[in-house]
Amino acid sequence: MRISGLADASGVAVATIKFYLREGLLHPGVATSATQATYDDSHVRRLRLIRALTGPVGLSVQQARAILELVDDPGHDLYSTLGRAVGALPPTTTAADAADPDPYPRARAALEALEQVYDPRFPAVAQLETALAAAEDAGLPISPERLLAYGRTLRELAAYDLERMPPEPRAAVEYTVLGTALYEPVILALRRLAHQDVAARLDLGQ
Amino acid sequence: MRISGLADASGVAVATIKFYLREGLLHPGVATSATQATYDDSHVRRLRLIRALTGPVGLSVQQARAILELVDDPGHDLYSTLGRAVGALPPTTTAADAADPDPYPRARAALEALEQVYDPRFPAVAQLETALAAAEDAGLPISPERLLAYGRTLRELAAYDLERMPPEPRAAVEYTVLGTALYEPVILALRRLAHQDVAARLDLGQ
Repeated sequence: MRISGLADASGVAVATIKFYLREGLLHPGVATSATQATYDDSHVRRLRLIRALTGPVGLSVQQARAILELVDDPGHDLYSTLGRAVGALPPTTTAADAADPDPYPRARAALEALEQVYDPRFPAVAQLETALAAAEDAGLPISPERLLAYGRTLRELAAYDLERMPPEPRAAVEYTVLGTALYEPVILALRRLAHQDVAARLDLGQ
Repeated sequence: MRISGLADASGVAVATIKFYLREGLLHPGVATSATQATYDDSHVRRLRLIRALTGPVGLSVQQARAILELVDDPGHDLYSTLGRAVGALPPTTTAADAADPDPYPRARAALEALEQVYDPRFPAVAQLETALAAAEDAGLPISPERLLAYGRTLRELAAYDLERMPPEPRAAVEYTVLGTALYEPVILALRRLAHQDVAARLDLGQ
């Protein structure tokens, strides 16, 4: 298809497609003349990914580029690549003070209680620390019992997600990034709606 | 305690406490003279709640006021009050076009598949619709099978949360608001860390 067809198929404006081509975020089409090129489904797919990252996921073009580079070149250590790709998603966390021997005490205790393997450089560790501290500050700390209930349930869901990860490395990075960022709002909305359903079946007084 | 003691106990500056008193967000202390009053644990607790709502939860003072009014006067229909209080939390959603007979088709189908009771005016329905549409747009729609896996698991967690809701209505509203808003980031961080744990135990190639 021509660039106008690509714009129709992807819902991305021609000027924006040209910008992504210039920036190298989108791979060139096959040149059919000095001024024209032809594009295929791989371009539609890539534009969907760029649009998701810069739209609902909320990344800048530069932040999206960092993730796209990992999709394009996952390297040989897929575990590390997936960690870096997810770590590049919001929310941003500030790096720990290098002099602090135990910068995430709440998260460390929680992950030890859950017997989970983790890398303290993974931003979700700082994210968990901040979230646990905020709950504690508000006078509603996560009890050890609740931590186990939440942690075990979420680990089941994580196993479900990973069982469905495509084997091809580039597709795996794309699946992991989008499945993390785009399914998080689904999970939060489903949780609120599950609360409503459970509450509706209780006698809370009308 | 005096206002300076309240500031120490709550971590909220005296000037901010005075602002909350003037705005009626914080109940007055017991006057001990024309210019002094004494405060107790109920004030510390209230300041923690205000601080959580305007800090990590990210509400403006006016938005926090709407929730505090529901905490102070839950009325007789606790189910509806809990729904309104959670509906006042971020993310904000735009109301559906009143002329549209089916404004949330994806969310409706999902909740029907999960056999959940829901009120379409509850903002989490619009939130779910937006999240499902974004996943679809990105080429990674939530499959019916995944919806059931996520929905059933989150409903178990919701039942766990509601079993622990305090019976006293004002405490119930406070628990629901803070447990919704402050535990969401905990859940998202735990999910990312569970992915890391599951991935670490797979052979992803080093």
